[in-house]
Amino acid sequence: MTVTETPLAEVAAALRAGEHDPVAYAGRLCDRVDERDPEIRAFYEECDRRGRVQSAAEGVADSYDPDGRPPLFGVPVGVKDIVHVDGFTTRAGSALPPELFGGDGAPEAAVVERLREAGAVVLGKTVTTEFAGFAPGLTRNPHNTDHTPGGSSSGSAAAVAAGMTPLALGTQTGGSVVRPAAFCGIVGFKPSFDRVPTDGVLTRSASVDHVGLFTQDVAGARLAASALCDGWERAGGPGDRSGDTGGRPTLGVPEGPYLDRADPEGLAAFREQVAALADAGYEVVRARPFEAYERVDRQHLDLTTGEVAREHEAWFAEYEPFYRTTTAETIREGLSVSDERLAGTRAGRERTRERVHGRMDAAGVDLWVCPAAPGPAPGSIATTGDSVMNRPWTYAGLPAVTVPAGRVDGLPVGLQCVGRFGSDERLLARVAGLADALGTV
Amino acid sequence: MTVTETPLAEVAAALRAGEHDPVAYAGRLCDRVDERDPEIRAFYEECDRRGRVQSAAEGVADSYDPDGRPPLFGVPVGVKDIVHVDGFTTRAGSALPPELFGGDGAPEAAVVERLREAGAVVLGKTVTTEFAGFAPGLTRNPHNTDHTPGGSSSGSAAAVAAGMTPLALGTQTGGSVVRPAAFCGIVGFKPSFDRVPTDGVLTRSASVDHVGLFTQDVAGARLAASALCDGWERAGGPGDRSGDTGGRPTLGVPEGPYLDRADPEGLAAFREQVAALADAGYEVVRARPFEAYERVDRQHLDLTTGEVAREHEAWFAEYEPFYRTTTAETIREGLSVSDERLAGTRAGRERTRERVHGRMDAAGVDLWVCPAAPGPAPGSIATTGDSVMNRPWTYAGLPAVTVPAGRVDGLPVGLQCVGRFGSDERLLARVAGLADALGTV
Repeated sequence: MTVTETPLAEVAAALRAGEHDPVAYAGRLCDRVDERDPEIRAFYEECDRRGRVQSAAEGVADSYDPDGRPPLFGVPVGVKDIVHVDGFTTRAGSALPPELFGGDGAPEAAVVERLREAGAVVLGKTVTTEFAGFAPGLTRNPHNTDHTPGGSSSGSAAAVAAGMTPLALGTQTGGSVVRPAAFCGIVGFKPSFDRVPTDGVLTRSASVDHVGLFTQDVAGARLAASALCDGWERAGGPGDRSGDTGGRPTLGVPEGPYLDRADPEGLAAFREQVAALADAGYEVVRARPFEAYERVDRQHLDLTTGEVAREHEAWFAEYEPFYRTTTAETIREGLSVSDERLAGTRAGRERTRERVHGRMDAAGVDLWVCPAAPGPAPGSIATTGDSVMNRPWTYAGLPAVTVPAGRVDGLPVGLQCVGRFGSDERLLARVAGLADALGTV
Repeated sequence: MTVTETPLAEVAAALRAGEHDPVAYAGRLCDRVDERDPEIRAFYEECDRRGRVQSAAEGVADSYDPDGRPPLFGVPVGVKDIVHVDGFTTRAGSALPPELFGGDGAPEAAVVERLREAGAVVLGKTVTTEFAGFAPGLTRNPHNTDHTPGGSSSGSAAAVAAGMTPLALGTQTGGSVVRPAAFCGIVGFKPSFDRVPTDGVLTRSASVDHVGLFTQDVAGARLAASALCDGWERAGGPGDRSGDTGGRPTLGVPEGPYLDRADPEGLAAFREQVAALADAGYEVVRARPFEAYERVDRQHLDLTTGEVAREHEAWFAEYEPFYRTTTAETIREGLSVSDERLAGTRAGRERTRERVHGRMDAAGVDLWVCPAAPGPAPGSIATTGDSVMNRPWTYAGLPAVTVPAGRVDGLPVGLQCVGRFGSDERLLARVAGLADALGTV
C-alpha cells in the first residue's frame, strides 16, 4: 500500500549511473501523484505539475556530464509549503494574504538552493498545518486514511510514505519532522540546530526552528543530509565530542517523567524495541536525560508560543478573522509570555543541551533511544498528534532521527534516536545499524 | 477602472441576435479574468478556465436555432462557491474536508440548472467568506483594493464590478448580496424568500437563506430574475397585493431607530439621494417600518446564529481546528440559542412581514428606500462590513435591491429599495426609474 518506489539512495545511484532517466523517473512519480494524491492530499494542487517537473528534470539532465553528476541528480523532492521555492506562492496552510509572506517575489530558501545545487528537482509544495502549528491540513495517513499523518510537515511525510517522492523537506519546532515520519512509517531526520540554514523558511519560532527531511530509509537520510547540512563529514562531524570511533553505540533509555508521557501501548512497543536491540547485542543503560523535565518542557512551550506570538502579532492585529481557532489560541497564549521569560527560555537551550551531554558522559550513553511519539497516529485528521516525546530534544537542539520500529494496532511506530549536538554524521551512521537490528527497514 | 464590459441585458440581446459570438465573448471575459483577477481575486484559481468555458459556450451555441435562443444564451456567470456546480468541488471558503459538503458527487443546485436552461455558461466559482459568514476571503474591492468588496458574496460582487462577468450569483442570510453590491457600485437583488430554490446551496440558516444575483444595472437584474425566480411575470407577480398599476411609486423613508444605525456620512448621502428623488417628482413619506426594530434585529441574530450552529454542530465537534476564529465564535454563540427561542424567531418572520405590510398600507408606502449599508466599504479586507441595514428586511423575507447611488469618500454607496413580499417583478420595474432619477446607472 505504501512505499512502492525505490528508496532515495538507490534511485539516486541509478540516476547518477544513467540507469534511470531523470525525465522518465519524474514522469513516473507524477503518475503516482495523480494516482494516490486525490486520496492522500500530500501535495497542493497544481495545474501542470508534469510539464513543469519534466522540464526541470530535462534541465538537470542537460547540465551535467555523466561523470560529474551531483549526489541528488534528477531526484524529485517535495517541499513543505512554508519554504520559499521559486515559481510557487508560499501559503503556509493559511488563509491570510500570501503577499504577507513575501508573495511571488520572496527569495528562494537557502535549503532549496542546496537541493538544486545537488541536482534535485522540486516535485511540488507539500501540505503544512497552518503556519506549521496545530491547525491541520487535509493530508491523510497512507497507512490508514482515517488517521492523521502527523504534523506539521504532514504532506512531506505522507508523500514519502505513499511512494510519491523519495525525498521531502519539512521543519520541526516541536516534533514536526520526527512525529509525522513515525506515524507514516518512514525515516525523519532533524539535524542539530542551525546545521541547515532557515533563510527563506517562514519563521515560526526562530530559536527552535529546524529544517529536516523525510526518506524511506536511513541510507537516504544520510545522502540527503550530506547535501543539505553545513560541513557534512563522512565520519564524526566537527561538533562531535563523543570520542568513540563509530563502533556499536551504548544506548540510553530515558528514566524519569519524560517516558511516562508515552501511551501505554506506545511504551510497550518501545520496551519490545529495546529488548530486540539488547538481543542484537547493543548495550542498554538507563539514565535520566533531563534534570527537571517538566521545566524543560515548559521552557520549550513558552519559548515557542512566545516567539510565534511575536512573529504574528502585527498580522494577527490586522487579520485575526483569517486565522484558524487553534492558531489564534497559540498566539493569544504566547502574547502573555513576557520578554524576560522569553530571554530566559532562550538561554535555557544551551544549558539544557550541556546538561544532557553531561548525563551522557556520566552514564556512558552514546545515543538516546525513545518513542518518536506517544503511540501510533490518532484516528482523526483533526489532530496531528502530540509532540511531547520530541520537544525537549528539539529545545536542546540535538540531532534526532526516527526509524520505523514495527506496528501498534496496525499502524507504524518509530524509534527516536537522539545524539550529541553536532554529531549528526555519527548519529545517522549508528542508526543505520539500529534499523537493521529492528528488522523494519 | 471598473465595469468596462457591456451590461447583461444588452450583451444578452446581442448574443441572442447573433451580434456577439458566445465563444469569442467567453474568451474575452477569460482575458479580463486573467488581467484583473490576480489583483481582485474574485474567482478561485482554475487550471483551464478558458478551455472549459469556451467548450461550454460552444455547447450552448450549438444547442439552439437562431430564433429559439433562451434569455441568457451564451452569458457567462460567476457562481458563489457555496452553490454546487457540476465539475467543481464546493469548498465554501473553508479548510474543512470538502467531502463533508457532498464532494464532487453533490447534485447541481436547482438555480444553476435554471441558469443552464436559460443558456448561461459557468465562468467560475467566486470567492465566499467561510460558510457565507464573517471570516473573509481574499477578494478586494475593484474601486479601491485596500477596501473590502463586502461579503459574504465577495467574489460575485467584485467580479461583476470589475467587468469580469455580466452576471453572478450570491446568497443572502443577513446582507450578503445587497451590501457587497453597494460596496462595489453595482446592482444586487435579493428576491422574496423562497422565490428562488435553495436546493444544492450549502445551508447557512435555512429559514433566512436567499439566493440572489449581481448585475451592472437594473435591466440586467430583471432579465436574470426572470430566468431564476419561480413564476416570474412581466408586471406584478402573483404575490403582489399593492394594488397600484405600476405608476410612479410612493417612497417610504424609515423612521425610528433602524436608520440611526447608518454612519453619519452614509446617512448624509442617503438624505441627498432622497432629496434627488423628491426633486425628480417622487412622493416621499416618512414612516416607521418596524414596531420594535431592536427586537426584530435580535430575532434575526438568534435565528441565524442558532441555525448556523445546528447546521455545523456535528462538524464542529469533529473538526473544530479547521474553523476560522469568527466562524467558531458564531457557532459557539448559536449553540446557546434554545430550541424554543429558535421556534419563536422562526414564527416571527411572517409576523414581521405582515406588520411591515401593514405599515405600508397605513402610510401609503409602495416601497421603502434606505441605505444599503451603514456607509461605504471599510478600508480593510479583514472585515466585510456590517449587514445591519439589511437584516430586518431579510428576516421578513421581503424583496430588496440596491442600486448605485453616488459616492462617499470616493467609494460607491447604494440605495436599498424594499418591496412587498412576492412583488419582485414590480419592485425591479419601479427601481429602474429610481436608478434613472439618481443618474448613476
